Amino acid sequence: MNNPTLKQIASQLGISITTVSKSLKGYSDVSEKTKKAVIDLANQLNYTPNSFAVNLRTKESKTIGLIIPTLVHDFFSSVIDGILEEAEKRDYMVIILQSNEKVELEKKQIDLLLNKRVDGILMSLSNETGDFEHLKTIISHNTPLVLFDKIAKLVNCSKVTINDRKAAYDAVCYLIKKGYKKIAHFRGSYLPQNSIDRFLGYKKALEDNNIIYDPSLVFVCENNMDFEDGYENAIKVVNEHPEIDAIFAVTDLVAIGIIKYLNDVGIPIPKQIAVFGFSNWFMSSVISPKLSTIDQPGFEIGRKSASILFDEINLKKNNLPVVFQSIELGTTIIERQST
Amino acid sequence: MNNPTLKQIASQLGISITTVSKSLKGYSDVSEKTKKAVIDLANQLNYTPNSFAVNLRTKESKTIGLIIPTLVHDFFSSVIDGILEEAEKRDYMVIILQSNEKVELEKKQIDLLLNKRVDGILMSLSNETGDFEHLKTIISHNTPLVLFDKIAKLVNCSKVTINDRKAAYDAVCYLIKKGYKKIAHFRGSYLPQNSIDRFLGYKKALEDNNIIYDPSLVFVCENNMDFEDGYENAIKVVNEHPEIDAIFAVTDLVAIGIIKYLNDVGIPIPKQIAVFGFSNWFMSSVISPKLSTIDQPGFEIGRKSASILFDEINLKKNNLPVVFQSIELGTTIIERQST
Repeated sequence: MNNPTLKQIASQLGISITTVSKSLKGYSDVSEKTKKAVIDLANQLNYTPNSFAVNLRTKESKTIGLIIPTLVHDFFSSVIDGILEEAEKRDYMVIILQSNEKVELEKKQIDLLLNKRVDGILMSLSNETGDFEHLKTIISHNTPLVLFDKIAKLVNCSKVTINDRKAAYDAVCYLIKKGYKKIAHFRGSYLPQNSIDRFLGYKKALEDNNIIYDPSLVFVCENNMDFEDGYENAIKVVNEHPEIDAIFAVTDLVAIGIIKYLNDVGIPIPKQIAVFGFSNWFMSSVISPKLSTIDQPGFEIGRKSASILFDEINLKKNNLPVVFQSIELGTTIIERQST
Repeated sequence: MNNPTLKQIASQLGISITTVSKSLKGYSDVSEKTKKAVIDLANQLNYTPNSFAVNLRTKESKTIGLIIPTLVHDFFSSVIDGILEEAEKRDYMVIILQSNEKVELEKKQIDLLLNKRVDGILMSLSNETGDFEHLKTIISHNTPLVLFDKIAKLVNCSKVTINDRKAAYDAVCYLIKKGYKKIAHFRGSYLPQNSIDRFLGYKKALEDNNIIYDPSLVFVCENNMDFEDGYENAIKVVNEHPEIDAIFAVTDLVAIGIIKYLNDVGIPIPKQIAVFGFSNWFMSSVISPKLSTIDQPGFEIGRKSASILFDEINLKKNNLPVVFQSIELGTTIIERQST
C-alpha cells in the first residue's frame, strides 16, 4: 500500500493535520490520548515521515554526505572506515556517492546531497575537477564542507591532507641515499593537487641531490592511477630506458602493477630495479617482494575530516562562529624488500 | 544565507505558495510571466527545492539506494561498478550505504532510504541478518527491491545470485581430481546463505567422492571473511592438522591470508598444501603463487541486479504487474599455480 499522508490520518481521526504532525513529533501541547491514537493509527497504516528523524524545531536529519572519486581503492577504503567510525559514534549515517573521477557527476551529486538536506559534506575531488564553483555552492548554502586528500586550495573551508610534497621528497631522498641514481616516476594526472605535489617532491629531491631532472623518466598514469597504469608504464620504461635502477610510483596500486610486470619478465627487484610505492595498502606487505612505501594514515584522515565536520555542524547549529582549519597529518617511510 | 522557503518567494512576489510551487514545476496553468518572475527570484535567492528533481506528478527522484555489508572487498567493488554503469545509462544516482555487517545499521539505512523516497533499493544482506521484517517493510511501502549475493529466500522479490553450492562443489571436486585428499575448508559465518551453500558444496563433494567429512577440518572466518581470518586460521590448521594437503577458502581475501602465512613459514604451495579461493579478485593473479579460484562475475551481478530493478521501477510507474525473477549467473574454475 502507498505511504499514507498526514491528511489521511487526520481525516480518519477527525482532527487537524497540525495536530497529527505535532503528535508524531511528541509536542507537549497535545493530549496523551490524542498522541496515542495518532501513533497507533500511523503504525497500523505503516506511515513513514517525510524526512527521516527530522525534528521540526532543529531541522536536523542526522546524515552527512561523502563524495569520493572511487570506492575501491587502497587508500579510500581506510578513509571511509575512519569516517564511518566517527559517524557511528554520533548516530549519524553517511550517504556515500562515487564520482568516478568525473566532475559532471560530482556536481550532480552535490546537488543531490544539498537537496536531501544533509547536515554536512565530506569530499575528495575527482581528477577532472579544475574549477570550484560547485564547491562554493555548498558553502553559499551554509552547509559545512570539509575537503580531504584531493582538495582545492582556493575554496574557503577546512581541509585535511598530508604533505604530499614532503612525503615524495623523503621517498626519493631515501632512494638516493640507498644508492639509486636513475629514478623514474610514475605520476598521477595533471589536475589533482596531490599528484602535482608528489611529482614536485620527486623533482626537488633529485635537484637537491645534484641529479639532473629528466622529463623522459616521468610517465603519467592516465588510467586513474591503477594497476594497469603501473603494468603498462613499466613495459614502456623498461624498453625506453633500460638504464633505470628505481621507480617511484604515485600509489601502491601502481607500484604493484610495476612489480607484476618486472616479475613476469624476470627482472630482479631490487637488484636491477627497485620499486617504491605510496599509501601502505595492506597488499603491499603481502606481495612478493614486499613493497617499500609511504605510510599514508587513511583511517586517521577519514576520522579527522569527519570529526572536524561534526564540530562545524554543531557550531553552526548553535550559531557560533566557525574557524576553518587546515590539518596536515604526518607520513613515514616503510622500508621493505622492494628497495 | 539559509535556503529560502516557498513562502518567502510567494510573499516577496505577492502570490500564493501554490502558484510558486507550480511555477517551479512548470505547470501549464500558470502564466509564463509569473513562472519567469518566480524562477528568476528563486535563482537569485539560491533556492533549492526540497526534493531533488522531483516531478510532482510522477514523484520520481532519479535515485536508487544500495545497501551492502562492506565497500572495500574484492567482490563488492565489481558489483558496485556494474550497478553504477546501469544507473549512469539511465541518469540515476546511487546512494550507497555500508551496513558494516550489522543488521541494526541495515534497518536504519532502509528507513533512511525509504524516507528519502528513493525509487528502488538494491541490497546484499549483512552477516548478522537472520530475520527479514525490515526487508518486508520495503515491499509493503511499494518500493521495488532486488537482493543479490547474500539474499533472503523467504522474501518475495527479485534476486540475483550465483549457485554457490555448485561452485564450491566444483571447486572441491577439482581438488580431489588433482589428487588432494585431506581438504580443509575456511568457511564464512553461519547465517549468510552463500556461506552456508559454499560449505554444503564442499561437504557434498567430499561425500560424493567417498572422502569422510571431518568437521575438525572446517574453520569459521569470524572476522567477516577477510585477510586476517585466512592468516589466523592457517596458523591453527597447520598446527592442529599438519596432514592436510589442500585448503578451500570461502573468498580470495581469506585465501590470500592463507598464502601469506604459508609463505611466511616456508610451506611450499601447492607442493605441501594447495590453496583454492573464491571470487577471482584481481589480486589473485598478482600474488605469488597465483591463486586458483572460482570466477564470480561481480560486475555482471551488479549490472543485472540494477537492470532488473530499473525495469521494476518502470513497470510500477506505469501501473503494470511485476513478475519477480530469480537469476542465477554461472561461475567457472580458474586454475592457477596455487593448486
